[in-house]
Amino acid sequence: MRHQLEEDPMTYCVALKLDEGLVCLSDTRTNAGLDNISKYRKMHTWSVPGERIIVMMTAGNLAVTQAVVSSIQENLDHATDGRETIFTAPTMFRVAEVVGAEMRSVYNQHASMLGSSADSTIILAGQRAGGPLRLFMVYSAGNFIEASESLPFLQIGEHKYGKPILDRVVRPDTKLNDGITAALLSMDSTLRSNLSVGMPVDLAVIRRDAYEFSPLVRIEEEDEAFREISGAWSNALREAFVKMGSIVPSAWQTDDLDAPAFNSAPLSI
Amino acid sequence: MRHQLEEDPMTYCVALKLDEGLVCLSDTRTNAGLDNISKYRKMHTWSVPGERIIVMMTAGNLAVTQAVVSSIQENLDHATDGRETIFTAPTMFRVAEVVGAEMRSVYNQHASMLGSSADSTIILAGQRAGGPLRLFMVYSAGNFIEASESLPFLQIGEHKYGKPILDRVVRPDTKLNDGITAALLSMDSTLRSNLSVGMPVDLAVIRRDAYEFSPLVRIEEEDEAFREISGAWSNALREAFVKMGSIVPSAWQTDDLDAPAFNSAPLSI
Repeated sequence: MRHQLEEDPMTYCVALKLDEGLVCLSDTRTNAGLDNISKYRKMHTWSVPGERIIVMMTAGNLAVTQAVVSSIQENLDHATDGRETIFTAPTMFRVAEVVGAEMRSVYNQHASMLGSSADSTIILAGQRAGGPLRLFMVYSAGNFIEASESLPFLQIGEHKYGKPILDRVVRPDTKLNDGITAALLSMDSTLRSNLSVGMPVDLAVIRRDAYEFSPLVRIEEEDEAFREISGAWSNALREAFVKMGSIVPSAWQTDDLDAPAFNSAPLSI
Repeated sequence: MRHQLEEDPMTYCVALKLDEGLVCLSDTRTNAGLDNISKYRKMHTWSVPGERIIVMMTAGNLAVTQAVVSSIQENLDHATDGRETIFTAPTMFRVAEVVGAEMRSVYNQHASMLGSSADSTIILAGQRAGGPLRLFMVYSAGNFIEASESLPFLQIGEHKYGKPILDRVVRPDTKLNDGITAALLSMDSTLRSNLSVGMPVDLAVIRRDAYEFSPLVRIEEEDEAFREISGAWSNALREAFVKMGSIVPSAWQTDDLDAPAFNSAPLSI
């Protein structure tokens, strides 16, 4: 088993841990072969108003992650044996342990048959009253890592296309609304570069100490506003790009192809 | 053997085929374990002034790609058996076949021992007098694909971080100097997001029908101009990003955290 899912090409989920709150964004596309592409919710949310709020986003083997989420929900609905649930765990760290235990249990059921194709990853974000905002990545083995000051975002699935924009703009003190914008642009870059990551996308925002979603929305494929953001970002990038030409030293440029020969500056190379 | 090297995390090479010419850019970092990191040239160039000009950039198993490049050079220097070389091949397509034959031959020597770790990829770019600019990706099996109008750039190695900027700005009619800028920014994004891709970088530009490099330069790690480009691009991206906030609809934003409560706009969610 690998320590970390390098990439699940049919998924992109990203979560930001900012001073003001948590931003979670996931796509919804899943396939079981090129001719069997469908939409599955990868974002799952729970809340106890005023007391705790939890988001999970999943990548990897859909059967495994569905079983994990179902078990967690079953335990909430029907557990009578006094076992700890994500609602009774006293801290988000303990919630991560509950999720990790379910991951390990389900993974162990399937790993001998499926091998590494059973690998899955869950991003867990939330807050419990009296505690800080927490953001974890839980692996198949049940182990997990936590976002930090120097790593204020976590990604699962097809994460590379959308990382550069996050690397450049996201810091812990980034405003929550700017974090939402950054997550949307990161998703947009991924959608453009990889056909297997697809709309609609689910957005969940958790403000610090609010214990309610603000907002929790699905953004549909035909959404005009998302298209407008995508187009505006492309235009903004192209405008920014045009300005860059003047900064590249002439030694790295080719001589002016359009200028008449008698008017050329001497080649600096 | 895989058809295509998904990624060689210690390499990033990119080539653009534009109407005005070809842009080739490669990093130089190579490792054989985390404690054995060094610099190797991944870009190899040949030219016959006025007649042909060729660039190869390599990714994958260093022993394999070095053997391929050495064999190609040996055949140029010492071949007496009348076999076709990259200098005698009548077209760039035939040059690609020569390179493919060397790849297949070297790969076959090592694949039984090395398995998929012998996988390698070569980007081949160039022009022969009387023919068009050509840009190929040659695989270990000796097969190759060619860049096209709809795919005006090819990448090998750690290619995902640097793809979004290329997707947004590179078209066949992109000016050659803009293509150089785009390649440099694509490399910059990769360098920032992945520590295993490293400076210096090698830049080779081939103007259409010129049969000489314009320019062919190495950009060193401490290069001030590259740092300036990198910083300016970060600033330009952040400025572009700031403008995006006003485009995100209020339904996807959280309510203003700083505004006093009596002054808040009603929540639109």
